[in-house]
Amino acid sequence: MLKLAVESLTAKAFSPFGDVVETSGVAPLHINQGYAERFDNLAPIDVADQGGATKVSIFEAKAIARPIVLRVMERHPLGSQIFYPLQNCPWIVVVCGDPRDFSSYRAFLAAGSQGVNYRRNAWHHPLIALQNSERFIVVDRLGQQSNLEEIDISGMAFLVDHE
Amino acid sequence: MLKLAVESLTAKAFSPFGDVVETSGVAPLHINQGYAERFDNLAPIDVADQGGATKVSIFEAKAIARPIVLRVMERHPLGSQIFYPLQNCPWIVVVCGDPRDFSSYRAFLAAGSQGVNYRRNAWHHPLIALQNSERFIVVDRLGQQSNLEEIDISGMAFLVDHE
Repeated sequence: MLKLAVESLTAKAFSPFGDVVETSGVAPLHINQGYAERFDNLAPIDVADQGGATKVSIFEAKAIARPIVLRVMERHPLGSQIFYPLQNCPWIVVVCGDPRDFSSYRAFLAAGSQGVNYRRNAWHHPLIALQNSERFIVVDRLGQQSNLEEIDISGMAFLVDHE
Repeated sequence: MLKLAVESLTAKAFSPFGDVVETSGVAPLHINQGYAERFDNLAPIDVADQGGATKVSIFEAKAIARPIVLRVMERHPLGSQIFYPLQNCPWIVVVCGDPRDFSSYRAFLAAGSQGVNYRRNAWHHPLIALQNSERFIVVDRLGQQSNLEEIDISGMAFLVDHE
């Protein structure tokens, strides 16, 4: 089986696919009489096209089975989608430019303090958690239209090189 | 000094001021080939009026000084605002109907798995964290207009009855 190497998640490496949601490298605003720092506006929310609004949800994930074999990729043609971890646990992000082209795939190990904002139409694997009961807050599009495309890639038989 | 008692945070008790963002009591959707449960659309995001969009930020708070003396209340006339804790730590939510009327104030102890969505124009105290470096993800309004009203209540001299 082909193996996809896992990189550290950085804003630059992830930029073809969206944004890294993190405070690292961001200068905060000092607010609330000094009681809080605000790391402001960490990712563009692109959901308003065709009457869309914003939806906030929580996902609770099971740990992915090992080895991590990729079977499906998906994208959202009408909106961006943020995932941010709620228990400070590392997780895995897999994206690609063309789901039929192995060379276009990238896998990232995200820290527990890193979320991602998938750009509209960016191909990505469904949520990959490394432990059971990991929770993520999700910010994506609320609307009536169909906003999910999926493609079965199980015939490509490749896996993510992570224990 | 007048003391404001602290109640447990429940959706019913908080309903005059907004929504509790939590998975408790919500039936999830089963998605991602069984690898995740989606607790969908947990709070209405009301930011679109007058051309507003959605903004996602992270707040990092200092522990509030004890005793917890309330000095300022605020509200956002153009949008709702979610706070959701990122480290599963309890925190305190103070709201009121009329900032000049002590009898209209309510204080809630939120669990680390509970966020709140302040309704547009709901008076609330700035973020009250009980420990240092607590982080919260915030979903509120992005726009050019002024969206903050503050009122100094330090002359009322009352405190929240919490150690």
